[in-house]
Formats: sequence, C-alpha cells, structure tokens
Amino acid sequence: MENNQLKHQLYIVIFGTHTRAGRIFDIALIIAILLSLTVLILHSIEGLATEWDDVFQKLEYLFTALFTVEYLLRLYCSPKPRAYASSFYGVVDLLSILPTYLALLFPSASFMGVIRLLRVMRIFRILKLVRYLQDSNILLRSLLMSRRKIFVFFSTVAILVTIFGALIYVIEGPENGFTSIPQSIYWAIVTITTVGYGDLVPSTPLGKAIASLTMLLGYSILAVPTGIITAELSQEINTHRNLVKCPNCSKTGHESDALHCKHCGSELAAPDERVVIETKAD
Amino acid sequence: MENNQLKHQLYIVIFGTHTRAGRIFDIALIIAILLSLTVLILHSIEGLATEWDDVFQKLEYLFTALFTVEYLLRLYCSPKPRAYASSFYGVVDLLSILPTYLALLFPSASFMGVIRLLRVMRIFRILKLVRYLQDSNILLRSLLMSRRKIFVFFSTVAILVTIFGALIYVIEGPENGFTSIPQSIYWAIVTITTVGYGDLVPSTPLGKAIASLTMLLGYSILAVPTGIITAELSQEINTHRNLVKCPNCSKTGHESDALHCKHCGSELAAPDERVVIETKAD
Amino acid sequence: MENNQLKHQLYIVIFGTHTRAGRIFDIALIIAILLSLTVLILHSIEGLATEWDDVFQKLEYLFTALFTVEYLLRLYCSPKPRAYASSFYGVVDLLSILPTYLALLFPSASFMGVIRLLRVMRIFRILKLVRYLQDSNILLRSLLMSRRKIFVFFSTVAILVTIFGALIYVIEGPENGFTSIPQSIYWAIVTITTVGYGDLVPSTPLGKAIASLTMLLGYSILAVPTGIITAELSQEINTHRNLVKCPNCSKTGHESDALHCKHCGSELAAPDERVVIETKAD
Amino acid sequence: MENNQLKHQLYIVIFGTHTRAGRIFDIALIIAILLSLTVLILHSIEGLATEWDDVFQKLEYLFTALFTVEYLLRLYCSPKPRAYASSFYGVVDLLSILPTYLALLFPSASFMGVIRLLRVMRIFRILKLVRYLQDSNILLRSLLMSRRKIFVFFSTVAILVTIFGALIYVIEGPENGFTSIPQSIYWAIVTITTVGYGDLVPSTPLGKAIASLTMLLGYSILAVPTGIITAELSQEINTHRNLVKCPNCSKTGHESDALHCKHCGSELAAPDERVVIETKAD
Repeated sequence: MENNQLKHQLYIVIFGTHTRAGRIFDIALIIAILLSLTVLILHSIEGLATEWDDVFQKLEYLFTALFTVEYLLRLYCSPKPRAYASSFYGVVDLLSILPTYLALLFPSASFMGVIRLLRVMRIFRILKLVRYLQDSNILLRSLLMSRRKIFVFFSTVAILVTIFGALIYVIEGPENGFTSIPQSIYWAIVTITTVGYGDLVPSTPLGKAIASLTMLLGYSILAVPTGIITAELSQEINTHRNLVKCPNCSKTGHESDALHCKHCGSELAAPDERVVIETKAD
Repeated sequence: MENNQLKHQLYIVIFGTHTRAGRIFDIALIIAILLSLTVLILHSIEGLATEWDDVFQKLEYLFTALFTVEYLLRLYCSPKPRAYASSFYGVVDLLSILPTYLALLFPSASFMGVIRLLRVMRIFRILKLVRYLQDSNILLRSLLMSRRKIFVFFSTVAILVTIFGALIYVIEGPENGFTSIPQSIYWAIVTITTVGYGDLVPSTPLGKAIASLTMLLGYSILAVPTGIITAELSQEINTHRNLVKCPNCSKTGHESDALHCKHCGSELAAPDERVVIETKAD
Repeated sequence: MENNQLKHQLYIVIFGTHTRAGRIFDIALIIAILLSLTVLILHSIEGLATEWDDVFQKLEYLFTALFTVEYLLRLYCSPKPRAYASSFYGVVDLLSILPTYLALLFPSASFMGVIRLLRVMRIFRILKLVRYLQDSNILLRSLLMSRRKIFVFFSTVAILVTIFGALIYVIEGPENGFTSIPQSIYWAIVTITTVGYGDLVPSTPLGKAIASLTMLLGYSILAVPTGIITAELSQEINTHRNLVKCPNCSKTGHESDALHCKHCGSELAAPDERVVIETKAD
Repeated sequence: MENNQLKHQLYIVIFGTHTRAGRIFDIALIIAILLSLTVLILHSIEGLATEWDDVFQKLEYLFTALFTVEYLLRLYCSPKPRAYASSFYGVVDLLSILPTYLALLFPSASFMGVIRLLRVMRIFRILKLVRYLQDSNILLRSLLMSRRKIFVFFSTVAILVTIFGALIYVIEGPENGFTSIPQSIYWAIVTITTVGYGDLVPSTPLGKAIASLTMLLGYSILAVPTGIITAELSQEINTHRNLVKCPNCSKTGHESDALHCKHCGSELAAPDERVVIETKAD
C-alpha cells in the first residue's frame, strides 16, 4: 500500500508538471540534458578532446549514471512500464544511455557514441511543460490539418527537382561537374531551396538559363508552404479563441492573453487552466 | 457485347480510382514508376553503370515492356482512344517508353534516354488519387485565381533583374567576371532569389553596395508572392468550407476533418464523398 | 479642326488601351521594346559583338528611329506635351533614345549606351493594359498601405546589420577578410538575407557562433515583411470584392472571376468594365 | 521656480516629440547620429584611415562633445535622472560616448572604439517619432503575442540542427571538413536557414542525401515563423482598426488612412492624434 503511494508520488513528480516538485524535477532534468549535450559536443573538438579527455569521460559517466537512475525510476513508477519502455520517449531515453554502456563492453564501438546526441530529443518532452503546451498544440494541429497539402507540395517539388536535375545533366554534362543524375538532382535541390552552396554551378549559357528558371521557380513555390501554414494557423488561432468561454456571459473570442471577458468584464479562467482543459479535450 | 463489358471493366480499373481493383492498380503502377526511375537514375552513376550495365539494361527493357502493355491497354479500353493519345498524360505515357525503342533502332540516339525521366510526371496522375484530389484542387485554384498578380510580380522581377544586371555590368565590368549583360542578369537572378552561389561576386565597394541593395530588395519582394498565395489560399479554404452543407440544418462552415455538423450535431457526409461531389461540380 | 481630330485620334491609339487600334499599337510597341532589349543584351556578349557588330549597330539605329518617331508622336498628340515630357514615362522614353544620338556625336561616350536598358521600364507602362491594371493596383495599394511598417522593418534591419557587422569585424578582424566595417556590414547583409555568397566566411569559433545567430535572426525576421504584405493584401482583396455591387440586389462580396451575383443570380458587370470604373474612381 | 520651468521646457524639447522644437531637436539628433556613424565606419577603412586619420579623429571628438552635452542635458532635465541613467536608452547613450574618453585615458584600449557603433541603437528612440509609433507598436505586439510560438519554433530548430549536425559529422567526418560537432552544427544552421555559404559542403553521396533532406526541411519550416507572424499581424491590424471609434456614430473598423467615418461620413480624429491616444492607453 505504502509502496503504491510512493510509486504514485514519484509518478506525479517525474511524469507530471502541475506540482511544484514536478516542475523542479523538469527544470533539473533539462539542465542535466543541456550540460550532458555540451560535454558531448565539446568532446568532439579535437584540441579539447586530447587535453580534457579524462574530465569529459568522467562527466559522461556521471550523466549516464544519472539518466540511468531516472530511466529505472520511470520504469518503476510508471503504471504501465511496458507501454512506457516501448513509447517514443521510452526508446529515446534508453538510446541516450545505452551507447555509453556498449562502449564499455566493446571499446571498438565508440563511434556509436553519437547516438547519445539523441538526448537532444528529450528536450521535446520538456517543451510539453504547461506554458508552451497550448502553443505547440496549435502549431502541431496546423501542420496536421495541412499534411495532405504539404504532401502534394513535396511531391511536386520532387518531380520538379527530378526534371530540372535531368535537364541540367544533359546540358552541362560530366565535364562541368554534373557527373550523374543523383548529383544533378542534388544540385537542383540546392538551387530550388535557394541554399546555393556554389559547389556545383552551371557554366554554359543554356545551363545558366535553366538554373535561373529553377531559382525563380523555387523562389515562387516557396510561397506555397508558407501560404498553407499561414491559412491553417489563422483558422487554428481563431478556433482556439472560440474555445475560451466567458463563465458569466458565455461569449467567446477572447485573445490568448486576456484576463477579463471583453464583453462583460468578468474574470476568465487563468491561461494555464484553459490549457489543462484543452489537453483533456484533446 | 462481352467485349464492351470487358473494356468498361478495364476502364474502371485502369482509369478509375474508386474501386478496390482500381486502387491496387494505381499503387502497383506508382511502385513500377518509382522503381524504373531508380534504375534510370542509378544507371547514370559512372561507377555503377560499368559494373551493372547489363542488369540495368535488362530491368529497363522489363519496365518498358510493362509500360508498353499498360499504354496499349489504356488505348484499348479508353472510350475515346484518340483523345487519350493526344492528351497531356497520353503524350507523357508515350514519351516514357519511346526512347528505349528508338535506342534499339538507332544506337547512337542513346542520349535521348533522359527523356524517359519524364516518367516522373506520371506520378502527377497518381496524385489525383481520391484523398489528395481535394487538396491539390485547392492549391491549383489558388494559383489560378492569382495568376494575374503572379504575372505582374514576375514582370516586375524581370525588369528589376535587367536594371540591376545592367548596373553591376557597368560598375564591375568584365575584369571582375561580369563579362556580358546576360551573365550579369544571371548574377542578379542568383542574388535577388537569395540563392547566392558565389561564383560571381562583386569586388568593388560600389558593386557591393548595389549587391546589398539587390539582396534587400529580393528579401522584401519575396514577401509579395507569399502574400498573394496566402491571401488567395485563405479565401479558397473558406469558400471550400462553405461548400460542405449539413444535411440536417443546411448550415455550412465545417472544418475539413469535421464528421458532425457543429451547429446541430448530425452526421456529415464522409470527407471522401464530399470530394467526389466537388469533383463532379468542378 | 481636322488637325485637332487627327491629334485626338492619335491620342486614343497611342495613349489609350480601350480601342482595338490602341491595343494593337501597345502589342507592337511591347514587341519592339523586347526586340531592342534583346539586341542590346546580345551586343554585350564579346564573341557575338565582334562578329555581328555591324548588324547589331544597324538594328539599334532602326529601333532608335522607331522610338524617336513614337516619342515625337506622343509629344505631338498629347494635350499637354510639357506635362508628358516631364512625367516619369516621358523621361524614360527620352532616356531610351538619347544615348544613341549622343554616341553618334561623341563616340567616346559609348559607355552611356547601357542607359538604353532603361527601355525595360517602358514595359511597366504596358503592364497598365486593362486586364492587369486591377491586380497591379491591388499589389501597389498593399505596398503603400504598409509603407510605414516596411520603413520600420528596414530601419530595424539596418540597425541589426550595423551591429552584427561591427561584432564580426571585432571578432574576425582583417586577417580573416573582414578588412573594414563597410565590408563587414556587406557580409552581414549577405548573411541576414540568406544569400550567402561564401566570399566572406567566419573562420573563428566565436565568429561562427555570431554568424549562426545572424542567420537564425535573418531567417525569422524574413517572416515580418511577408506577414505585413499578406495581412494588407488579404484586406485589400476583401475591400476590392466589396467594391463590386450587384446591379439588382446591391449586395457585394463577389469573387473576382464571378459573372453572376451569388445572392440573386443576376448578371454582374464584366470584369473589364469593373476595372474601368475603378480606374476612374482612382 | 524659474529653474524648474527651464527644466520642464528642456524636457519637452529633448524627450518630447509633440512640439515643433521637439521635432527639430529629434531631426538634428538623428542627423548627428548618422553623421557620426558614417565617420566611425569610414575610419575603419584602411586606405582612408591613414590619409584622413586626423580629420576623422577631430570629427569624432566633436560628435562625442555634442553627445556628452546632450547626455548631461538629459540627466539635468529628466524628472528622475537615475531612472533615465539606468534605463536601456540611458545606458546606450553613455556607451556611445564613454569609449572616446577611455581611449584618451588608456590609448591601448582603442579597440573598444567599436562600442561606439552602439550609437546606431539610438536610432530606435527616434523611430518612436509620432508617425511611426503606431506601426512599430503593431509589429512589436505581434511579436510579443507570438513569443511562445516563436520559442517553440526555435527550440525545434535547435533540436533539428543538433540531430542533422551529428548525422553529417558521423557520415562525412573530419576528412571532409566536418572536424567537430560544433562545426557540423554550424553547417546545419547554414543549410537549414538556406544561407549556404559553401565553405563546408558534403562530398559523399549519403552526406548529400542528408544535406538535401536538411534543405527541404529548412525550406518548409521557414513557413512556420511566417505563418505565426502573419496570423498574429492580421488580427493585430483588425484589433487596431476596431480601436478607432467614429465620434458621431461610435462605429469602428476604419482603415488606418481613413479620414471620414465610412458609416456616417463624419470626420474622424486625425491619424496623429489617434496615435497619441493609443500611446496613453499603452
């Protein structure tokens, strides 16, 4: 019984975000993740690595130990440990500690250490912190609502890139660096996205004309995803506004930072609580 | 009579997308197209081409044979074979098999093989699959509605690019790589679209000032096509919403993923059927 | 009297766009402008210039003669010749013929020939053709409505670019190519507009960090002009819709391609005439 | 008493913008700031610096003297001198004169002279001039309203950049220039923002595939901040419109350049005064 209560207490602290202890835990965790990422990143710099190798290694062991304890606690207090372990975040949590242990067992597998950078994805979980939840939900819903339009858009881009890649391959040819069609498609992507590295550049007048066309096309179709997202986002924000009802006059349409009903002046639910409601409804 | 029925059956499977057989056919076709594109693209890589030339050649013959059968079946079962053969997709279908036969007859014409990459355009037809039809229609209509604004925009870009190209040609001159006005216009396009290859770069202070102006201009007029598309798209989505009527209360304004009328709660037509209706109305 | 009538007839053909003759004149003019631009541009290519110099020179004389006749006719038939001569288009018309005459008088002044490229601006006048007038008006009005926001935006960009330019100048210094503050500001503009030529690139870790910040900033403030234009454009399109009244029920809100009133079904004025009305009101 | 009145008079001229004297002071100040910035910038060009060093130095002393007088006057006439001195603009004002004095005392500290470029930030204060206040307020409010969405967006970009940086580091490795993870993250930022310097470029086929993915991702997520800003800006403009009430019929919804009420035709408050009202409410 007491055990169960401890479990539940732990669960609220580790998985929840509404209690004070839960928030402190989350903030401590995000700091630990960012510090461990900094250590991993600095460790990859050659000059630093040779000099401070020992310190970096020890810090890495420390963080791995910490995250291992956290992982085991999560497994322990979760009501459904298997569901957690096989969830997206469960896998990420495991992948961010496993490589260190594997490197101890098989020293040759140290290249796998980069997998630990997946720790960065754990930050996504923290972004689920109350305050930002509402806004990432709006962004996500806009993307989901327009996923079909985005798919149509990317198919069109893929087709255009293949055609322009093939064209430039025929026009410029291997003697100007366009050695194969994949290489030429890579050039077309670099050009249509307006990145323009400049490692592959058309040299013939006709090639330059095709390149100009590709750029202008890229320039204008860049407008399409923006238009899609903006149109959905505008409606998402409007819809969201209409979800917040005044408890007194029941009218909606309040701005997201409004504290009082703009129709009758009575106090609205605090933004945080509104979020909670929406989360439940989700 | 029986022949006619077979024709009609085939027509529904090959051209239609509403039956189960029709969908399976479309999916099989898209896989064949993607595979044949992969073979064509890999064939252009020198290292692979010399080693696997034989395999690639045979696979290409196989795909050409498949697409030939498909083309003949389409001709056979189409109620108006001539209309099909002279339609956009009819020509694309022919162009994606012809080069292989021509290469057999005239081995020197192998450079025409790239035309086979036009097969990629056949994917557009598949995008017409039920689910994505509605969304590509909205995108297309937005583009059509704003075609005049886009024409005005591109004319303005063409004029700006000519003026800035001429300016940089006079300022930098052939000694800094700006050897002719077309070359300078190419530079202006590379700059105004924010691609920035870096193959042509101003070296004089005045040239750099002009280049900065071009960039800032490009940066801000990039906003114009986006604004055009977004404004049209927002209204297109709104108009579309208003097309879906509740069968019970006849009110409109339902979101595209709504299943129940938001005014009276009665069930709406399934999104797929709504699409069909719109297609007929189109 | 007869002279006056001839003048008026000419005026309608040359300056007007509503009669058939006026349209033919405009189309002939746009073709002549584009051809003369092509000749000018081709003349700047060294290889072609030496070989065909004579032909290009003669064609240029021909076009100059044509445009001179047109300019004199415009002066002759315009009701207020002085107002025309000192107007923007009057000056552009003069500047596109003057350099050829000056080059005849002072052969050393041939570098001024590039001024003739200003002919490209004459195309703007043609864009005023009936069909596109409405749409360029909407675009122009959106830009005018948001001119103050755009000014605020560009001032902010100018300030940011100066600060980041100074920062990179201090961090990277002349030994990495950042030889002066103007040079560094040029780099900041190249970076913040996401052009990225790559002729000036940070080499120190701190410089790369500053560059990353500049890029991310540029990436996100790119959103601001787009947002400004889109917001204004949406409202401009809405306002415009509301200008078209149904002659029967007087209701507004018709789409720009609507032929019948969506409220009562009676025929609307043809889009062309609507434009004429708006032009008068302008 | 008289002293107090002088103080107040000075305060209105120096800090205010509504009197004629106040406007003249602001315009004189902006000219002085721009001139002193020009001197600082030109001074950094080596060729000019050696030749005109003396002139530049004297001009700099002159501007520093001017700004010192201005700073002391601001301190003198401000009702709360301490509040001013510790405010953002107070610190900027001090930082733009201090380095010149420090350079006189410690000649070796001349590198600090770049701090004087912070003068550019003083222009922000001038942008607060009546006419532009309204528009910068709208822009600022849009940014503030969407600050949480922008934070979520930047966190996502940071996570993506880390993951793609790590990927390219593993794939390309130090032999292709990707010497460390920070270096690779820098590459990912250069790529995802579509800057594309071209100083670091993938050479392996797999690296090019990852780079293509990064570009396409960057290309499409560029749409997100634009969507956020546009959606907020549209609503901000709408809200703003509704703030302007007709004094006669009390209806709102007037465009920002409207002079007469569109409902009853009576004159509206002049745009300048509307701004003043909003400023007070702010």
